[in-house]
Amino acid sequence: MSSVPEPSNELLKTAQDVRKASVSLSQTSDSQRQSALLSMADALGARSKEIVNANNEDLERSNNEGLGKALLERLKLDQNKLENSIDGVKKVALLADPLGIRQIKRELDKSLLLERITVPLGVIGVIFEARPDALIQIASLAVRSGNGAILKGGAEASCTNLEIMKALQEGLASSDVPSSALSLLTTRQESLALLKLEGLVDLIIPRGSNELVRFIQDNTRIPVLGHADGICHLYIDSDADLEQSLRVAIDSKTQYPAACNSIETLLIHADIASSFLSIAIPAFQELGVTLRGDPESKSLGIMESANEEDWSTEYLDLILSVKIVRNLSEALEHIRLYGSRHTEAICTTNQSVASTFLRSVDSSGVFHNCSTRFADGFRYGLGAEVGISTQTLPPRGPVGLEGLVTYRYMLVGDGHLASDFGTGKKSFIHKDLPL
Amino acid sequence: MSSVPEPSNELLKTAQDVRKASVSLSQTSDSQRQSALLSMADALGARSKEIVNANNEDLERSNNEGLGKALLERLKLDQNKLENSIDGVKKVALLADPLGIRQIKRELDKSLLLERITVPLGVIGVIFEARPDALIQIASLAVRSGNGAILKGGAEASCTNLEIMKALQEGLASSDVPSSALSLLTTRQESLALLKLEGLVDLIIPRGSNELVRFIQDNTRIPVLGHADGICHLYIDSDADLEQSLRVAIDSKTQYPAACNSIETLLIHADIASSFLSIAIPAFQELGVTLRGDPESKSLGIMESANEEDWSTEYLDLILSVKIVRNLSEALEHIRLYGSRHTEAICTTNQSVASTFLRSVDSSGVFHNCSTRFADGFRYGLGAEVGISTQTLPPRGPVGLEGLVTYRYMLVGDGHLASDFGTGKKSFIHKDLPL
Repeated sequence: MSSVPEPSNELLKTAQDVRKASVSLSQTSDSQRQSALLSMADALGARSKEIVNANNEDLERSNNEGLGKALLERLKLDQNKLENSIDGVKKVALLADPLGIRQIKRELDKSLLLERITVPLGVIGVIFEARPDALIQIASLAVRSGNGAILKGGAEASCTNLEIMKALQEGLASSDVPSSALSLLTTRQESLALLKLEGLVDLIIPRGSNELVRFIQDNTRIPVLGHADGICHLYIDSDADLEQSLRVAIDSKTQYPAACNSIETLLIHADIASSFLSIAIPAFQELGVTLRGDPESKSLGIMESANEEDWSTEYLDLILSVKIVRNLSEALEHIRLYGSRHTEAICTTNQSVASTFLRSVDSSGVFHNCSTRFADGFRYGLGAEVGISTQTLPPRGPVGLEGLVTYRYMLVGDGHLASDFGTGKKSFIHKDLPL
Repeated sequence: MSSVPEPSNELLKTAQDVRKASVSLSQTSDSQRQSALLSMADALGARSKEIVNANNEDLERSNNEGLGKALLERLKLDQNKLENSIDGVKKVALLADPLGIRQIKRELDKSLLLERITVPLGVIGVIFEARPDALIQIASLAVRSGNGAILKGGAEASCTNLEIMKALQEGLASSDVPSSALSLLTTRQESLALLKLEGLVDLIIPRGSNELVRFIQDNTRIPVLGHADGICHLYIDSDADLEQSLRVAIDSKTQYPAACNSIETLLIHADIASSFLSIAIPAFQELGVTLRGDPESKSLGIMESANEEDWSTEYLDLILSVKIVRNLSEALEHIRLYGSRHTEAICTTNQSVASTFLRSVDSSGVFHNCSTRFADGFRYGLGAEVGISTQTLPPRGPVGLEGLVTYRYMLVGDGHLASDFGTGKKSFIHKDLPL
């Protein structure tokens, strides 16, 4: 990709407007933000014909330009998909308010009270690829959490995105939230320059390929909520229910192979490798999964070889690498060396082995006797997913609304001076009060 | 500064060793980590003569090399300062364990239980300038929170740091924490290459100048906990106790002008500007503070002019810019344009104005009738300060041990498959259980 240009004056103006609107938005009440979302949903409904027409235009143009079938499918926003998206907005309206939660209430001194309260981040920048429904989802999450948003969609969806943004801003216009809290960028230059808006944009959320996420991480000082690789492992212990383990392995690999929480490598304890593979090889074959094994698993019937590179490869496809290990330690060592700290699972009936695995693996998700595919915001019960973060720092793993929220310290005194505490004239009480 | 080199094999080996040790460390109990800290404190005590001697060597060499007086003062670690540092280690041992705290306990389905538990980050990388006592402090915070640490001090303190690290590792050797959990880098090349150890190092903490922090932020994809500018404001409202406001202004500016939480700009409501400045100008003059005013405040007696650049300048010195504003909105607008979202304060007796200010300013600290100098981890009662973050995302502002901690999702099932929920055969319960 090309290098990152400086922001134009026009982009700076847009960002300043969004930031200014975000200050008003941050002061709205829970019910004002809920109403704003319902108003956005209504406006999308009222404009649904225009949106679907615009999407047809995008589809036709992209088809003529030779866009692949899978991407065309992602680009498509028919009446049915749009209605689902509108329902999604209404659901986000019903999520618990993430703002105004008191995390600390502490008396520092007589009449000097410290409180820590959750507040919006400010302005988020979102760069997403073909799917136009992502625009609807992320805009509603932003407004719900009191954040302004600058959004840039893929060129393929440009007509659809314009119509959607019109509707969203119409919705806001009849609410207490300023419609300038949301802004759509339309050129590629702008979306690149967005990465340089440090101080105006507080978080960048890339929704797209790993390549997009990496490029953004490499080209901005603004924090990025995104995920890079998902090299997930399933370890089948010697004490495992082999039938159940096979079902878990199949679900973890095949339920949606393109997802980051699907497994790429199966680690099998040597003691049960022969009996497990005798049922696993035909089962995977039937499902069209290619197995690539280390020498030992090849001697037990796997046809293709896994080489060193396989252990670090996210196939995102019906391919699974297989390795036989002597014991739990060897499995843990393999995960430590090749894992991406996304999600790892163990199948075992031995509680002590399970507990060591759960304690030792430092991935954001560590599972016992269940599919890695549960690593997902909706499945975890977070309500809505802002994205998945493969960073170690919080918010980590699947991130709900809490990823769009930060906190602020408020300190109220009566003329209190730090020097009085420095000289020993006064000393701190530091008494926590009930929240 | 020079560009960032690729890590040497030796550095990679060091980082892998620390990371491996951090996995054992992450599994130690609260009391094991407390004992390790006490053991580190004992070892520092036993080696105190060698440490102070090494420091004298560093001081002598640096003095000969022409190091400035202020930096020599920071470099100095005499018996007294060392004993204070050792006391600090013992205090960190007494801080509440930040690990193993359950944040979520949720039944996703019958026999499918999700828990979210606080865990260490893994490995932190710390780059600090002249002060060798920072090594002691940060190593103890790292071990307390279950993290490995790779540390790089300034070249000036090289002998001192080597002796300190010997003591710390001796202390760990007689504890249950592997001594390889702490490692000291000794060359500049290594400290630069540290910035490239993504996947091995989870957080970089720079302790030094703004320039150091910026350089690091620009040259790593690893998250950085640090602070850039602190452009803090104090606004004196028309309804203010002027005597008290002056005391707060003086404390906020002069108690420690080199600190990031000192004010750089005073905003004064036009209605009280004349009477406030008539007492403030002589008071600041007496304290050696140079005032730089906008045209209106100059007409009220300030001698020097503030130009556009002044509003964005962190003086870190006894200089204060002054601006007269018409009203609260103008003050808020000035803060929005020029502030660094660190800490801002208002002096007013008007509750409604105070409340608008507290709600509208999106800095990490927003204060009413007290000095901005309270924006500090110890003063907030966080126990110990890992650093101050000027990022918007949590951890924000002064950061205690929670900055070294993340969380992990643990999911325990009984052969649960995601496909059963995808096909509608099962549906999620999502029932929160008592923590």
